[in-house]
Amino acid sequence: MTIFSQRKEQLTKAYNELVTKKNQPEPLGNGIFTRYVNPVVTAAHVPLEWRYDFNEKTNPFFMERIGVNAAFNAGAIKFNGKYVVVVRVEGADRKSFFAVAESPNGIDNFRFWEKPILLPQTSEPDTNVYDMRLTAHEDGWIYGIFCTERKDPNAEPGDTMSAVANAGIARTKDLVNWERLDDLKSYSGQQRNVVLHPKFINGKYALYTRPQDGFINVGSGGGIGFGFTDNMEHAEVKEETIIDNKIYHTIKEVKNGMGPAPIETPEGWLCLAHGVRNTAAGLRYVLYMFMTSLDDPSKVIYTPGGYFIAPKCSERIGDVSNVVFSNGWIKDDDGRILIYYAASDTRLHVAETFVAQLVDYCKNTPSDDYRSDLSVKKIIELVDKNKSL
Amino acid sequence: MTIFSQRKEQLTKAYNELVTKKNQPEPLGNGIFTRYVNPVVTAAHVPLEWRYDFNEKTNPFFMERIGVNAAFNAGAIKFNGKYVVVVRVEGADRKSFFAVAESPNGIDNFRFWEKPILLPQTSEPDTNVYDMRLTAHEDGWIYGIFCTERKDPNAEPGDTMSAVANAGIARTKDLVNWERLDDLKSYSGQQRNVVLHPKFINGKYALYTRPQDGFINVGSGGGIGFGFTDNMEHAEVKEETIIDNKIYHTIKEVKNGMGPAPIETPEGWLCLAHGVRNTAAGLRYVLYMFMTSLDDPSKVIYTPGGYFIAPKCSERIGDVSNVVFSNGWIKDDDGRILIYYAASDTRLHVAETFVAQLVDYCKNTPSDDYRSDLSVKKIIELVDKNKSL
Repeated sequence: MTIFSQRKEQLTKAYNELVTKKNQPEPLGNGIFTRYVNPVVTAAHVPLEWRYDFNEKTNPFFMERIGVNAAFNAGAIKFNGKYVVVVRVEGADRKSFFAVAESPNGIDNFRFWEKPILLPQTSEPDTNVYDMRLTAHEDGWIYGIFCTERKDPNAEPGDTMSAVANAGIARTKDLVNWERLDDLKSYSGQQRNVVLHPKFINGKYALYTRPQDGFINVGSGGGIGFGFTDNMEHAEVKEETIIDNKIYHTIKEVKNGMGPAPIETPEGWLCLAHGVRNTAAGLRYVLYMFMTSLDDPSKVIYTPGGYFIAPKCSERIGDVSNVVFSNGWIKDDDGRILIYYAASDTRLHVAETFVAQLVDYCKNTPSDDYRSDLSVKKIIELVDKNKSL
Repeated sequence: MTIFSQRKEQLTKAYNELVTKKNQPEPLGNGIFTRYVNPVVTAAHVPLEWRYDFNEKTNPFFMERIGVNAAFNAGAIKFNGKYVVVVRVEGADRKSFFAVAESPNGIDNFRFWEKPILLPQTSEPDTNVYDMRLTAHEDGWIYGIFCTERKDPNAEPGDTMSAVANAGIARTKDLVNWERLDDLKSYSGQQRNVVLHPKFINGKYALYTRPQDGFINVGSGGGIGFGFTDNMEHAEVKEETIIDNKIYHTIKEVKNGMGPAPIETPEGWLCLAHGVRNTAAGLRYVLYMFMTSLDDPSKVIYTPGGYFIAPKCSERIGDVSNVVFSNGWIKDDDGRILIYYAASDTRLHVAETFVAQLVDYCKNTPSDDYRSDLSVKKIIELVDKNKSL
């Protein structure tokens, strides 16, 4: 048996085992959501055909020709009865792109479709694209809004790092053929974490935004903004209102941004977001939640204090450690919600919960009162209530 | 069985197993101290009654209502024959506070007291408090000096990070009722890592300080300072003398600070401190030791070179990775010393040693000579001495 045949056989076997492996819920947990033990999509889930030249003549050692580094921050949607994620796949060359993977149950057996998405370009090609939020809008299109990044045209000579971030926009009916629309036009600086609300509001499209002064630092900008555009072909947000600000000594002290498109419930819109604080070992990204009013999705009605999901165990480590991030979740008809969250910019995990649990969490978790002694008082109140039972 | 009863039963069982688990010393080690395998206090040690509403009517899913993120940097004291730690507990909301846990042996079976400490406030409420050093002073009080943090009143609009750190001071006789005293008044900038010496010196209270220019950066400040105050009710240190400075290319290149209050031995005061250096992955915190003179606790007499304890294995990872920190240790009458050190701002560990070992370590470990070739010469000398045996 040649090296080629042997490696091909072994790798194919290992690949098939990986993508058919059953996932298990973690025991116990905090009752608000349930983590699953295995990540659902990783770099190793990327098909061998994307990475290996299968011709023995040209690849006698069956060596990887195109390395894949990571598979993480995924948009998510229920599509034709399948649980579908649009994954941020990052090559060994650090360029990320989008690829669709689907699962019959949403918790394991994710398989990538045959080929990654070849995103049409605007007149100004993207250097990098990432973190697509999917919105099935009531206009009938599925929109994907993502971050597009290009070198800063005003960078000083020798500055190889400065870049400009903006919201790129594409739409599709089948997740295979994508129509690229104009990038978002806004007036508040750079943009990341832009998300389309699924419904028309007063006849307009509504966008969650995250204005920022610079490419990495939000500076005096920041917070989750909200604004309107008349159409999506040439999306333009003239005015952004900050509906959820960054705040001193909270889990969103440095910056924050919307996660996936909100989920409608009878009691309001469930919103999942990320908050960032600084530490001596770099930034720490956690997820938090809030709810907005059914009448007015820009009006925050419940703000459970602190984080909802923070990095845990192996999630803590990766290309960018101490990070959880989510830009995709799926609601089933029975109220089950699958939250796709990525760990440390490396791999995609799933957590399972139900609408009733998240609404209960948002309504009954005490808000952040911004002071240590007030946090202690809330604990003492709870202890006293428990003692009185 | 309802979800409520089932989860309550399972969580209670898991909790009881955790807090009664026996700890084991790690085999071998360097002979200077012995680590124990399990952390002694973690977020999971925090009582369920602080976190869960036990009323099935108001919490049918038995969900966590007040999340606890971490339990770390603890002051320590032998109290009524028990090993007692005053833990920095951090909520999911990032606010930390103090809570007492006690153990019969100091190495396992730590249990939190019924409620966290509700610290009285000064006229300017604390946003956050942490890292309490306990000193049983010869005046009869147990003092807790801790860091208090508040938003910088001079922060620019949009700057949600700038804060002011100072030493908060409280005292108690029973660790339950705390009298809050004035914050430390000093003239060298902000303060962290302030520790009260246990004895009067020339009739005055003596404080180790750590002056710093900014909130995070010590700037031109830094080093472990030493100064006096006439009383503790309105503590004021007019002059600070740096007794142990930060030094280029040492384990305390960026900053350093006193750990717990020094321990008296016939040969001098044992001092445990932390040193910080920078890396491409953020700051690295290690512990180091020195000894000061019995006659003059500000006079350093032994300076063993390099670190005493550095993060190892799982200790390396946490909310703020690559950190060990200690603000508490306990000396038994037989000379045993239990060092409570926290790993990566997440959990509390214990290491065991004896006075004789630490004095031997401080006296016989070569000092840092600040040059690679001089370090090599010390090794060659040792090899030659060993060869001559």
